Amino acid sequence: MQPNKIVTLTTDFGQAGGYTGAVKGVLLGINPQIKIVDITHEISPFNILEGALLLNSFYQFFPRGTIHLVVVDPGVGGKRRGILVRTDNYFFVGPDNGIFSFIYDRERVREMINLTNSEYFLGKPSSTFHSRDIFAPVSAYLSLGVKPGEFGSPAQDCCKFRLPEPVYGKDYLTGEIIYIDRFGNLITNINSDLLRERKKVKIGIKNKKINYLSQYYEEEKKGRLLALIGSSNFLEIAVNQGNAQKLLKAKTGDKVKIEKI
Amino acid sequence: MQPNKIVTLTTDFGQAGGYTGAVKGVLLGINPQIKIVDITHEISPFNILEGALLLNSFYQFFPRGTIHLVVVDPGVGGKRRGILVRTDNYFFVGPDNGIFSFIYDRERVREMINLTNSEYFLGKPSSTFHSRDIFAPVSAYLSLGVKPGEFGSPAQDCCKFRLPEPVYGKDYLTGEIIYIDRFGNLITNINSDLLRERKKVKIGIKNKKINYLSQYYEEEKKGRLLALIGSSNFLEIAVNQGNAQKLLKAKTGDKVKIEKI
Amino acid sequence: MQPNKIVTLTTDFGQAGGYTGAVKGVLLGINPQIKIVDITHEISPFNILEGALLLNSFYQFFPRGTIHLVVVDPGVGGKRRGILVRTDNYFFVGPDNGIFSFIYDRERVREMINLTNSEYFLGKPSSTFHSRDIFAPVSAYLSLGVKPGEFGSPAQDCCKFRLPEPVYGKDYLTGEIIYIDRFGNLITNINSDLLRERKKVKIGIKNKKINYLSQYYEEEKKGRLLALIGSSNFLEIAVNQGNAQKLLKAKTGDKVKIEKI
Repeated sequence: MQPNKIVTLTTDFGQAGGYTGAVKGVLLGINPQIKIVDITHEISPFNILEGALLLNSFYQFFPRGTIHLVVVDPGVGGKRRGILVRTDNYFFVGPDNGIFSFIYDRERVREMINLTNSEYFLGKPSSTFHSRDIFAPVSAYLSLGVKPGEFGSPAQDCCKFRLPEPVYGKDYLTGEIIYIDRFGNLITNINSDLLRERKKVKIGIKNKKINYLSQYYEEEKKGRLLALIGSSNFLEIAVNQGNAQKLLKAKTGDKVKIEKI
Repeated sequence: MQPNKIVTLTTDFGQAGGYTGAVKGVLLGINPQIKIVDITHEISPFNILEGALLLNSFYQFFPRGTIHLVVVDPGVGGKRRGILVRTDNYFFVGPDNGIFSFIYDRERVREMINLTNSEYFLGKPSSTFHSRDIFAPVSAYLSLGVKPGEFGSPAQDCCKFRLPEPVYGKDYLTGEIIYIDRFGNLITNINSDLLRERKKVKIGIKNKKINYLSQYYEEEKKGRLLALIGSSNFLEIAVNQGNAQKLLKAKTGDKVKIEKI
Repeated sequence: MQPNKIVTLTTDFGQAGGYTGAVKGVLLGINPQIKIVDITHEISPFNILEGALLLNSFYQFFPRGTIHLVVVDPGVGGKRRGILVRTDNYFFVGPDNGIFSFIYDRERVREMINLTNSEYFLGKPSSTFHSRDIFAPVSAYLSLGVKPGEFGSPAQDCCKFRLPEPVYGKDYLTGEIIYIDRFGNLITNINSDLLRERKKVKIGIKNKKINYLSQYYEEEKKGRLLALIGSSNFLEIAVNQGNAQKLLKAKTGDKVKIEKI
């Protein structure tokens, strides 16, 4: 696989600062042909799990050879390593702190490299801004055709964490909310495979009961609580043209119970 | 008209999630030559009118053949249709829920197509994320030269709503606030054509009076309320280096009265 | 220096409106080959100093010939001029209100032009939206190879302000917070050159004392206040995986004292 010229950016830098500007400048300064694609810069500060989940929801739609640059990096400058991961289809560049956890499960990993070759850094790297000083230049040189092995030596035992898994009790399957989107939709860790009999289901969340699965939001009246299988194939609790998060005062980690029937 | 490679994105997805990332990935996965232009992803959730007004303020500046992908879509997965509109100058892709209302008035419409041909969808579409599964792939194939008629059959009676019009009373012309921008400027539905005698005008809003039209913001002292003709040719209430929305506690729908003189 | 096709955008327009959309449309309408790079649209409304500081943190990483379009423009339509600045390496386009203050110090300025030639404006310019009507078309024609001198006559005495400088007292060096980033990190005006003896330093801020310089955030325990030299080489007060702004209730302008030792 050759890199194409696309580099996606996913960070917790926020919109307001010049941090993304510096990263974009370094990318284009080294390879003006790069096509930068902003995914988001609004990951909650330091929230590595949120970044990993986000990456999981979009990376696979990009053309083969895309470079995904992902930075949520509370440990910058400390002992965590920088890595480059090459899979059958994509390149991933960022800190080795678990941000690529789900990639290791879903993609066939071909190469993992510790980013140690300072020849490809931007001058002497700062200890607080490795996305500008290490991850951006590495991504840019990669897009120019530099081989992954040039950036350092093979990495072992990359950092990886797991999503909380639903728990099977006697009468209930218990999952939890793992992500809440802008619309206040509550995305759970309960995969649609676990809900064999669609339509027939009893869901408990925060003292509320939902007794069947909708197909789409507008199937319910405006303002009514509903459950459906969301676009990433997980059970999702929502309110038609409303906000389930606000209605239920829900937060990530809240339990969702499915009654066995 | 041939499509150029530009696709603009206007949505209510917010900045924080991976939804825009998935849409961008699908666009580039089908046609890596596309030039994606983010307009905004911060339309108020489900606010179709706001999306229609925004589209109206920028689409006409893009080069001929641009594809405008616009998604505010509370009815996703339900009975509302997806449409492609071809005018003399542009292509518009999105839900048929009124989001293109002002386009029908301002552009010469050449073709309206129901998006029903699943050959151009992304696999089996979800019922919650048509921008990823239908609108993005249709836009991408369109940019590759697929003819509009290939995506479905001609659409009739597309959904269209009208802006509230100013009302002519005996002594007053009464309009209202239809949009409030980031600076707290209050944009009304009163077109500059309705204010023939510039400078001489009496405006009433929220118990305040403004007695003439300024040419630009800084004409008034800092913090002072003023009225002027905004960049889209509508009467606008503002505060020099301040925030008229906060000063007046104004919201969309609030009335603005012009005394006949 | 020839312009390359890159135009960066830095504004206080916010994400929510169509203002950036109109600017991008005008740029691409005149030169569809332009590569637009969003830096930020979230500068605090009317805050020229913040815009100037931001520009300073990223412009130099872009390839030679990049056009930086920067708009924080409370005086739009009034007597402030529009300018184009050409340095050895870059072009800068925007209002002449001090937004390019630090550029004049850091770059070798070759040409400063008042933007007065209406041949290169978008129709008859509005008095409220010069970025759409003047700065965007000028930038686009510039990218097409129009010479700077074509846009107007040479400008003199461009508007320039200075950062507050640290003050040397008998026992203390007193600086202040000039910028606060998304993570609540407090960036001061104290350059690292002023802190000769690293590690040995006594810093006072808001009744708190910090007794040494860290190398990176994670060197301290989670939640602990620390000081380090940030990525732009200035003293920065931070909290590991926390928010120094909230912890200290700090704001820009707050004093930071360094004890002489």
